[in-house]
Amino acid sequence: MKNYCFGIDVGGTTVKCGFFKTDGTLLDKWEIVTNISCGGERILPDVAEAVLAKLEEKGVSKDDVAGIGIGVPGPVKEDGTLEGAVNLHWGYHDIVNEMGELTGLPTKAGNDANVAALGEMWKGGGSGHPNVMMVTLGTGVGGGMIVNGKIITGAHGAAGEIGHAHVEDNITDPCNCGNRGCLEQVASATGIVRLAKEELEKNDQPTILSLQDLSAKTVFDAYKEQDAVAEKIVNRFAGYLGTALAVFSAVVDPDVIVIGGGVSKAGEVLVDCVGKYFRQNAFSACKNVPIVLAKLGNDAGIYGAAKMVLD
Amino acid sequence: MKNYCFGIDVGGTTVKCGFFKTDGTLLDKWEIVTNISCGGERILPDVAEAVLAKLEEKGVSKDDVAGIGIGVPGPVKEDGTLEGAVNLHWGYHDIVNEMGELTGLPTKAGNDANVAALGEMWKGGGSGHPNVMMVTLGTGVGGGMIVNGKIITGAHGAAGEIGHAHVEDNITDPCNCGNRGCLEQVASATGIVRLAKEELEKNDQPTILSLQDLSAKTVFDAYKEQDAVAEKIVNRFAGYLGTALAVFSAVVDPDVIVIGGGVSKAGEVLVDCVGKYFRQNAFSACKNVPIVLAKLGNDAGIYGAAKMVLD
Repeated sequence: MKNYCFGIDVGGTTVKCGFFKTDGTLLDKWEIVTNISCGGERILPDVAEAVLAKLEEKGVSKDDVAGIGIGVPGPVKEDGTLEGAVNLHWGYHDIVNEMGELTGLPTKAGNDANVAALGEMWKGGGSGHPNVMMVTLGTGVGGGMIVNGKIITGAHGAAGEIGHAHVEDNITDPCNCGNRGCLEQVASATGIVRLAKEELEKNDQPTILSLQDLSAKTVFDAYKEQDAVAEKIVNRFAGYLGTALAVFSAVVDPDVIVIGGGVSKAGEVLVDCVGKYFRQNAFSACKNVPIVLAKLGNDAGIYGAAKMVLD
Repeated sequence: MKNYCFGIDVGGTTVKCGFFKTDGTLLDKWEIVTNISCGGERILPDVAEAVLAKLEEKGVSKDDVAGIGIGVPGPVKEDGTLEGAVNLHWGYHDIVNEMGELTGLPTKAGNDANVAALGEMWKGGGSGHPNVMMVTLGTGVGGGMIVNGKIITGAHGAAGEIGHAHVEDNITDPCNCGNRGCLEQVASATGIVRLAKEELEKNDQPTILSLQDLSAKTVFDAYKEQDAVAEKIVNRFAGYLGTALAVFSAVVDPDVIVIGGGVSKAGEVLVDCVGKYFRQNAFSACKNVPIVLAKLGNDAGIYGAAKMVLD
């Protein structure tokens, strides 16, 4: 049993790096800049240098390192390859072999949202459960499905792309994915603003919300103040998300559902309202599945990446 | 490597039994009556007797048998236990250990719909693909999810219960599961009859359909004759099912979608109309996932049960 491993979370701006004991203790974390110039050709070499420098600094031998796990923002397949990652300016990469050659260490690679779900399963909101459904509510809606302790990648690396589940027939403008009526269009931070605008435009009730200052945060803040318009908005959001999570649960039947991302900072009120619609529509066996908030915040990615290496 | 295995598919009326070579060749198949009297206490002993008698008849030693796979109509968990199966009059059973004690052979157990999906993956419509989503359109709507060649059972044995995905807010009568608006209520044989009744009641177009003789078959037969009312009905059905399959694909990203059950006897026209709505709403990476008809018919269960033993 080796004692150390690395968890790397590659984002479009920075690469988050974690140096772990294999029991899950985070020993050190730091960030490097993501160099996306020249088709992102420096990204993996920069990560490799950072990893090898950390081993030097800590006086740890490669022989005592289980490997490097790495999450990237793109559809990574089961074999650790991906066809491209827009935010990294990447075309095809064989991440596992490239990192292996650069470092001499075993490498595993996964989609960043899936890897974050694995992190929450290991040391976060889903801890102790082998079957975790994670949904991340940020600018978009991401997701990750953990079944029997492992990430599901799917045939095209697109498993867990639940932000692009169709939930509404009456949206006419396209989602970033090109379809119309995706969950992301009504349940992300931007989606909540969409719903808020719709309510305010047809509304004649008094409200503390204003079109000039709409965000997921202002909506949830007003909801906590029992603002009637904010209640309508949050109920629509929660109806879409809670029902969608119920549908997804009929597919994979999770032990627990973990909600993360910026919108989840609204806290327990979010879990409560989403849970109401979830329980209304979930299959009987799944009605009592707990819905919990993510715990690891921005560190979910490095935890999950490290965990990949240990499986 | 042992040369033989059994695949058993326990239904509410009969138990289908298959004796296989481990390469998947079906050597013999037969049925026994499902004895559901006395809480179904004879079901597993009857299967055990049938298995042992078959070995005797064929002159095959237990040492050359890889094991018994068994599918049952209930939520079987990862460890081969289930809390109950209404159609068998069963309460809790530890199928794996009970069959093991009765036969002295290794046993694996699974939910019948999941096991049928595994069968279609092994030797049917999903052959050659590790990630198969199967939907069975019969009196109800069943399903099974195969990921990396294995059945997903889920936390409560309810993975693949896609018939109970919520797809319609405007249904007021309850599904068999107790919820309202389940896929099963609009995409099963009975669901198609529901949609047909609704169309006929508000319809004033000429049609060869009549309220007195409605079934999934008469609707699809009329659809093939380009009956305008049947087209409306089939399009509504296909809209529900195709969109739902697109949503499920965003969760597990299958290589292939297999449609089985009595309704699938409508043939390629069913695949075509469901595929249209699927492609409209599927996430980009999944839009070209093939939708195919099941190939094994009522034998899918025994094939899948046999395959369970070999994994």
